[in-house]
Amino acid sequence: MKTLNDLFLHMLKDVYHAEKQILRALPKMAKTVTAPELRKALELHREETLRQVERLEQVFELLDKRARGEPCEAMQGLIEEAKSVMEEAEAPEVIDAGVLAASQAVEHYEISRYGTLIAWATQLGLKDAVPLLTETLEEEKKTDRLLTDIAEKQINRKAA
Amino acid sequence: MKTLNDLFLHMLKDVYHAEKQILRALPKMAKTVTAPELRKALELHREETLRQVERLEQVFELLDKRARGEPCEAMQGLIEEAKSVMEEAEAPEVIDAGVLAASQAVEHYEISRYGTLIAWATQLGLKDAVPLLTETLEEEKKTDRLLTDIAEKQINRKAA
Repeated sequence: MKTLNDLFLHMLKDVYHAEKQILRALPKMAKTVTAPELRKALELHREETLRQVERLEQVFELLDKRARGEPCEAMQGLIEEAKSVMEEAEAPEVIDAGVLAASQAVEHYEISRYGTLIAWATQLGLKDAVPLLTETLEEEKKTDRLLTDIAEKQINRKAA
Repeated sequence: MKTLNDLFLHMLKDVYHAEKQILRALPKMAKTVTAPELRKALELHREETLRQVERLEQVFELLDKRARGEPCEAMQGLIEEAKSVMEEAEAPEVIDAGVLAASQAVEHYEISRYGTLIAWATQLGLKDAVPLLTETLEEEKKTDRLLTDIAEKQINRKAA
Protein backbone atom coordinates (compact mmCIF):
# COMPACT_ATOMS: atom_id res chain seq x y z
CA MET A 1 0.00 0.00 0.00
CA LYS A 2 1.82 3.04 -1.27
CA THR A 3 -0.90 5.67 -1.59
CA LEU A 4 -4.12 6.83 0.04
CA ASN A 5 -5.88 5.30 -2.97
CA ASP A 6 -4.47 1.88 -2.03
CA LEU A 7 -5.52 2.43 1.59
CA PHE A 8 -9.03 3.45 0.51
CA LEU A 9 -9.41 0.33 -1.62
CA HIS A 10 -8.06 -1.81 1.22
CA MET A 11 -10.60 -0.39 3.67
CA LEU A 12 -13.39 -0.72 1.13
CA LYS A 13 -12.63 -4.46 0.85
CA ASP A 14 -12.47 -4.74 4.62
CA VAL A 15 -15.87 -3.02 5.08
CA TYR A 16 -17.36 -5.07 2.22
CA HIS A 17 -16.30 -8.26 3.99
CA ALA A 18 -17.54 -6.88 7.33
CA GLU A 19 -20.99 -6.06 5.94
CA LYS A 20 -21.28 -9.53 4.41
CA GLN A 21 -20.31 -11.12 7.72
CA ILE A 22 -22.93 -9.14 9.62
CA LEU A 23 -25.45 -9.97 6.90
CA ARG A 24 -24.89 -13.65 7.66
CA ALA A 25 -25.01 -13.13 11.44
CA LEU A 26 -28.14 -10.96 11.64
CA PRO A 27 -30.81 -13.62 10.96
CA LYS A 28 -29.50 -15.76 13.85
CA MET A 29 -29.39 -12.72 16.11
CA ALA A 30 -32.95 -11.68 15.14
CA LYS A 31 -34.19 -15.23 15.70
CA THR A 32 -32.55 -15.51 19.11
CA VAL A 33 -33.90 -12.34 20.70
CA THR A 34 -37.30 -12.24 22.36
CA ALA A 35 -38.41 -8.59 22.42
CA PRO A 36 -40.45 -7.92 19.25
CA GLU A 37 -39.09 -4.36 18.82
CA LEU A 38 -35.51 -5.59 18.94
CA ARG A 39 -36.23 -8.46 16.55
CA LYS A 40 -37.89 -6.05 14.13
CA ALA A 41 -34.98 -3.61 14.35
CA LEU A 42 -32.50 -6.40 13.55
CA GLU A 43 -34.62 -7.66 10.65
CA LEU A 44 -34.96 -4.16 9.22
CA HIS A 45 -31.25 -3.62 9.62
CA ARG A 46 -30.63 -6.77 7.61
CA GLU A 47 -32.67 -5.34 4.73
CA GLU A 48 -30.74 -2.11 5.06
CA THR A 49 -27.43 -3.97 5.07
CA LEU A 50 -28.33 -5.61 1.75
CA ARG A 51 -28.62 -2.14 0.23
CA GLN A 52 -25.40 -1.03 1.94
CA VAL A 53 -23.57 -3.94 0.31
CA GLU A 54 -24.95 -2.83 -3.06
CA ARG A 55 -23.72 0.71 -2.45
CA LEU A 56 -20.24 -0.61 -1.68
CA GLU A 57 -20.41 -2.54 -4.98
CA GLN A 58 -21.23 0.74 -6.72
CA VAL A 59 -18.14 2.33 -5.14
CA PHE A 60 -16.00 -0.57 -6.38
CA GLU A 61 -17.46 0.06 -9.86
CA LEU A 62 -16.59 3.77 -9.66
CA LEU A 63 -13.00 2.71 -8.98
CA ASP A 64 -13.18 0.23 -11.84
CA LYS A 65 -12.40 -2.61 -9.45
CA ARG A 66 -14.07 -5.91 -8.88
CA ALA A 67 -16.04 -6.01 -5.60
CA ARG A 68 -14.02 -8.24 -3.35
CA GLY A 69 -13.86 -8.62 0.42
CA GLU A 70 -10.81 -8.94 2.60
CA PRO A 71 -11.18 -10.74 5.93
CA CYS A 72 -12.01 -8.19 8.59
CA GLU A 73 -10.71 -9.43 11.92
CA ALA A 74 -12.38 -6.69 13.93
CA MET A 75 -15.83 -7.63 12.65
CA GLN A 76 -15.04 -11.31 13.20
CA GLY A 77 -14.25 -10.45 16.83
CA LEU A 78 -17.42 -8.39 17.20
CA ILE A 79 -19.54 -11.22 15.83
CA GLU A 80 -17.77 -13.76 18.05
CA GLU A 81 -18.76 -11.60 21.03
CA ALA A 82 -22.38 -11.56 19.91
CA LYS A 83 -22.29 -15.35 19.50
CA SER A 84 -20.80 -15.89 22.94
CA VAL A 85 -23.53 -13.75 24.54
CA MET A 86 -26.17 -15.85 22.76
CA GLU A 87 -24.54 -19.02 24.05
CA GLU A 88 -23.64 -17.97 27.57
CA ALA A 89 -26.61 -15.85 28.64
CA GLU A 90 -29.34 -17.96 30.19
CA ALA A 91 -32.36 -15.70 30.57
CA PRO A 92 -34.10 -14.36 27.44
CA GLU A 93 -34.05 -10.79 28.80
CA VAL A 94 -30.31 -11.02 29.38
CA ILE A 95 -29.74 -12.41 25.88
CA ASP A 96 -31.71 -9.47 24.48
CA ALA A 97 -29.61 -6.92 26.40
CA GLY A 98 -26.38 -8.63 25.33
CA VAL A 99 -27.31 -8.97 21.65
CA LEU A 100 -28.46 -5.35 21.57
CA ALA A 101 -25.12 -4.21 23.06
CA ALA A 102 -23.19 -6.35 20.57
CA SER A 103 -25.20 -4.83 17.70
CA GLN A 104 -24.33 -1.35 18.90
CA ALA A 105 -20.63 -2.25 18.96
CA VAL A 106 -21.01 -3.41 15.33
CA GLU A 107 -22.77 -0.15 14.42
CA HIS A 108 -20.03 1.91 16.03
CA TYR A 109 -17.36 -0.01 14.17
CA GLU A 110 -19.17 0.74 10.92
CA ILE A 111 -19.72 4.40 11.86
CA SER A 112 -15.97 4.81 12.32
CA ARG A 113 -15.17 2.98 9.06
CA TYR A 114 -17.66 4.88 6.90
CA GLY A 115 -16.51 8.17 8.51
CA THR A 116 -12.95 7.38 7.43
CA LEU A 117 -13.99 6.21 3.95
CA ILE A 118 -15.93 9.47 3.41
CA ALA A 119 -12.97 11.60 4.57
CA TRP A 120 -10.60 9.70 2.26
CA ALA A 121 -13.02 9.72 -0.71
CA THR A 122 -13.40 13.48 -0.28
CA GLN A 123 -9.63 13.96 -0.14
CA LEU A 124 -9.16 11.77 -3.21
CA GLY A 125 -11.82 13.67 -5.18
CA LEU A 126 -14.03 10.56 -5.52
CA LYS A 127 -17.10 12.78 -5.70
CA ASP A 128 -19.58 10.09 -6.71
CA ALA A 129 -18.53 7.80 -3.87
CA VAL A 130 -19.15 10.37 -1.12
CA PRO A 131 -22.99 10.45 -1.28
CA LEU A 132 -23.19 6.63 -1.44
CA LEU A 133 -21.01 6.25 1.66
CA THR A 134 -22.77 9.12 3.43
CA GLU A 135 -26.19 7.52 2.92
CA THR A 136 -24.93 4.37 4.61
CA LEU A 137 -23.23 6.29 7.43
CA GLU A 138 -26.51 8.06 8.21
CA GLU A 139 -28.33 4.70 8.26
CA GLU A 140 -25.78 3.24 10.68
CA LYS A 141 -26.13 6.24 13.00
CA LYS A 142 -29.91 5.98 12.84
CA THR A 143 -29.78 2.26 13.67
CA ASP A 144 -27.49 2.99 16.62
CA ARG A 145 -29.93 5.62 17.95
CA LEU A 146 -32.87 3.26 17.47
CA LEU A 147 -31.06 0.55 19.43
CA THR A 148 -30.25 3.01 22.24
CA ASP A 149 -33.91 3.93 22.33
CA ILE A 150 -35.07 0.30 22.52
CA ALA A 151 -32.47 -0.43 25.22
CA GLU A 152 -33.46 2.52 27.37
CA LYS A 153 -37.20 2.16 26.97
CA GLN A 154 -37.49 -1.53 27.71
CA ILE A 155 -34.69 -4.04 27.23
CA ASN A 156 -32.44 -2.88 30.10
CA ARG A 157 -35.35 -2.54 32.51
CA LYS A 158 -36.62 -6.02 31.71
CA ALA A 159 -33.13 -7.48 32.08
CA ALA A 160 -32.50 -5.84 35.48
CA MET B 1 -24.90 -15.32 32.87
CA LYS B 2 -28.33 -15.18 34.41
CA THR B 3 -28.83 -11.50 35.23
CA LEU B 4 -27.97 -8.03 33.97
CA ASN B 5 -25.50 -7.90 36.87
CA ASP B 6 -23.65 -10.88 35.38
CA LEU B 7 -23.69 -9.27 31.96
CA PHE B 8 -22.38 -5.99 33.40
CA LEU B 9 -19.50 -7.79 35.13
CA HIS B 10 -18.77 -9.74 31.94
CA MET B 11 -18.56 -6.55 29.87
CA LEU B 12 -16.49 -4.83 32.54
CA LYS B 13 -13.92 -7.64 32.28
CA ASP B 14 -14.03 -7.45 28.50
CA VAL B 15 -13.43 -3.67 28.49
CA TYR B 16 -10.71 -4.02 31.16
CA HIS B 17 -8.89 -6.49 28.93
CA ALA B 18 -9.47 -4.28 25.88
CA GLU B 19 -8.00 -1.21 27.60
CA LYS B 20 -4.95 -3.18 28.69
CA GLN B 21 -4.44 -4.46 25.14
CA ILE B 22 -4.62 -0.97 23.68
CA LEU B 23 -2.28 0.25 26.43
CA ARG B 24 0.30 -2.24 25.18
CA ALA B 25 -0.29 -1.38 21.50
CA LEU B 26 -0.21 2.43 21.77
CA PRO B 27 3.55 2.93 22.30
CA LYS B 28 4.34 1.03 19.09
CA MET B 29 1.66 2.98 17.21
CA ALA B 30 3.00 6.32 18.54
CA LYS B 31 6.55 5.33 17.61
CA THR B 32 5.57 4.27 14.09
CA VAL B 33 3.71 7.41 13.01
CA THR B 34 5.55 10.42 11.61
CA ALA B 35 3.25 13.43 12.06
CA PRO B 36 4.14 15.06 15.42
CA GLU B 37 0.51 15.98 16.22
CA LEU B 38 -0.63 12.41 15.73
CA ARG B 39 2.26 11.01 17.76
CA LYS B 40 1.46 13.45 20.58
CA ALA B 41 -2.25 12.54 20.48
CA LEU B 42 -1.42 8.82 20.76
CA GLU B 43 1.03 9.43 23.61
CA LEU B 44 -1.49 11.56 25.47
CA HIS B 45 -4.15 8.93 24.92
CA ARG B 46 -1.84 6.35 26.46
CA GLU B 47 -1.60 8.47 29.64
CA GLU B 48 -5.37 8.82 29.59
CA THR B 49 -5.83 5.08 29.13
CA LEU B 50 -3.75 4.44 32.27
CA ARG B 51 -6.28 6.49 34.24
CA GLN B 52 -9.19 4.76 32.47
CA VAL B 53 -7.82 1.40 33.59
CA GLU B 54 -7.68 2.72 37.17
CA ARG B 55 -11.29 3.86 36.93
CA LEU B 56 -12.34 0.39 35.78
CA GLU B 57 -10.49 -1.02 38.80
CA GLN B 58 -12.53 1.33 40.99
CA VAL B 59 -15.73 -0.03 39.44
CA PHE B 60 -14.57 -3.60 40.17
CA GLU B 61 -13.99 -2.49 43.78
CA LEU B 62 -17.50 -1.01 43.99
CA LEU B 63 -18.82 -4.44 42.94
CA ASP B 64 -16.52 -6.09 45.47
CA LYS B 65 -14.86 -8.06 42.70
CA ARG B 66 -11.24 -8.55 41.84
CA ALA B 67 -10.22 -6.60 38.70
CA ARG B 68 -9.76 -9.24 36.05
CA GLY B 69 -9.79 -9.14 32.27
CA GLU B 70 -11.47 -11.51 29.87
CA PRO B 71 -10.03 -11.84 26.36
CA CYS B 72 -11.76 -9.33 24.11
CA GLU B 73 -11.77 -10.67 20.57
CA ALA B 74 -13.11 -7.48 19.05
CA MET B 75 -10.23 -5.41 20.42
CA GLN B 76 -7.77 -8.11 19.35
CA GLY B 77 -9.17 -7.80 15.81
CA LEU B 78 -8.97 -4.00 15.91
CA ILE B 79 -5.35 -4.12 17.06
CA GLU B 80 -4.50 -6.72 14.41
CA GLU B 81 -5.85 -4.30 11.81
CA ALA B 82 -3.65 -1.50 13.16
CA LYS B 83 -0.64 -3.83 13.05
CA SER B 84 -1.32 -4.92 9.48
CA VAL B 85 -1.51 -1.27 8.35
CA MET B 86 1.84 -0.59 10.04
CA GLU B 87 3.35 -3.58 8.24
CA GLU B 88 1.74 -3.24 4.83
CA ALA B 89 1.73 0.50 4.23
CA GLU B 90 4.93 1.68 2.60
CA ALA B 91 4.88 5.48 2.70
CA PRO B 92 5.03 7.26 6.09
CA GLU B 93 2.04 9.47 5.20
CA VAL B 94 -0.03 6.40 4.34
CA ILE B 95 0.99 4.68 7.59
CA ASP B 96 -0.13 7.81 9.49
CA ALA B 97 -3.54 7.83 7.78
CA GLY B 98 -4.01 4.10 8.42
CA VAL B 99 -2.94 4.19 12.07
CA LEU B 100 -5.17 7.19 12.68
CA ALA B 101 -8.16 5.38 11.15
CA ALA B 102 -7.41 2.26 13.22
CA SER B 103 -7.26 4.39 16.37
CA GLN B 104 -10.66 5.87 15.57
CA ALA B 105 -12.12 2.38 15.18
CA VAL B 106 -10.73 1.57 18.63
CA GLU B 107 -12.26 4.75 20.07
CA HIS B 108 -15.64 3.94 18.55
CA TYR B 109 -15.55 0.46 19.98
CA GLU B 110 -14.86 1.93 23.41
CA ILE B 111 -17.55 4.61 22.98
CA SER B 112 -20.12 1.89 22.34
CA ARG B 113 -18.91 -0.23 25.27
CA TYR B 114 -18.84 2.60 27.81
CA GLY B 115 -22.25 3.79 26.56
CA THR B 116 -23.66 0.33 27.28
CA LEU B 117 -21.89 0.04 30.66
CA ILE B 118 -23.32 3.42 31.73
CA ALA B 119 -26.86 2.43 30.67
CA TRP B 120 -26.59 -0.87 32.55
CA ALA B 121 -24.98 0.71 35.64
CA THR B 122 -27.80 3.27 35.73
CA GLN B 123 -30.42 0.52 35.40
CA LEU B 124 -28.73 -1.52 38.14
CA GLY B 125 -28.56 1.48 40.51
CA LEU B 126 -24.73 1.40 40.59
CA LYS B 127 -24.70 5.13 41.26
CA ASP B 128 -21.00 5.45 42.06
CA ALA B 129 -19.96 3.61 38.90
CA VAL B 130 -21.85 5.95 36.55
CA PRO B 131 -19.63 9.08 36.96
CA LEU B 132 -16.44 7.00 36.65
CA LEU B 133 -17.61 5.41 33.39
CA THR B 134 -18.99 8.73 32.11
CA GLU B 135 -15.66 10.48 32.65
CA THR B 136 -13.97 7.85 30.48
CA LEU B 137 -16.70 7.97 27.83
CA GLU B 138 -16.23 11.73 27.50
CA GLU B 139 -12.46 11.25 27.14
CA GLU B 140 -12.94 8.66 24.38
CA LYS B 141 -15.30 10.97 22.50
CA LYS B 142 -12.84 13.85 22.87
CA THR B 143 -10.00 11.68 21.55
CA ASP B 144 -12.11 10.65 18.57
CA ARG B 145 -12.87 14.31 17.77
CA LEU B 146 -9.20 15.24 18.13
CA LEU B 147 -8.23 12.45 15.72
CA THR B 148 -10.87 13.59 13.19
CA ASP B 149 -9.44 17.09 13.48
CA ILE B 150 -5.85 15.92 12.90
CA ALA B 151 -6.99 13.75 9.96
CA GLU B 152 -8.92 16.54 8.26
CA LYS B 153 -6.38 19.30 8.86
CA GLN B 154 -3.31 17.47 7.67
CA ILE B 155 -2.92 13.68 7.65
CA ASN B 156 -5.36 12.92 4.81
CA ARG B 157 -4.07 15.77 2.66
CA LYS B 158 -0.46 14.66 3.08
CA ALA B 159 -1.38 11.05 2.32
CA ALA B 160 -3.27 11.94 -0.88
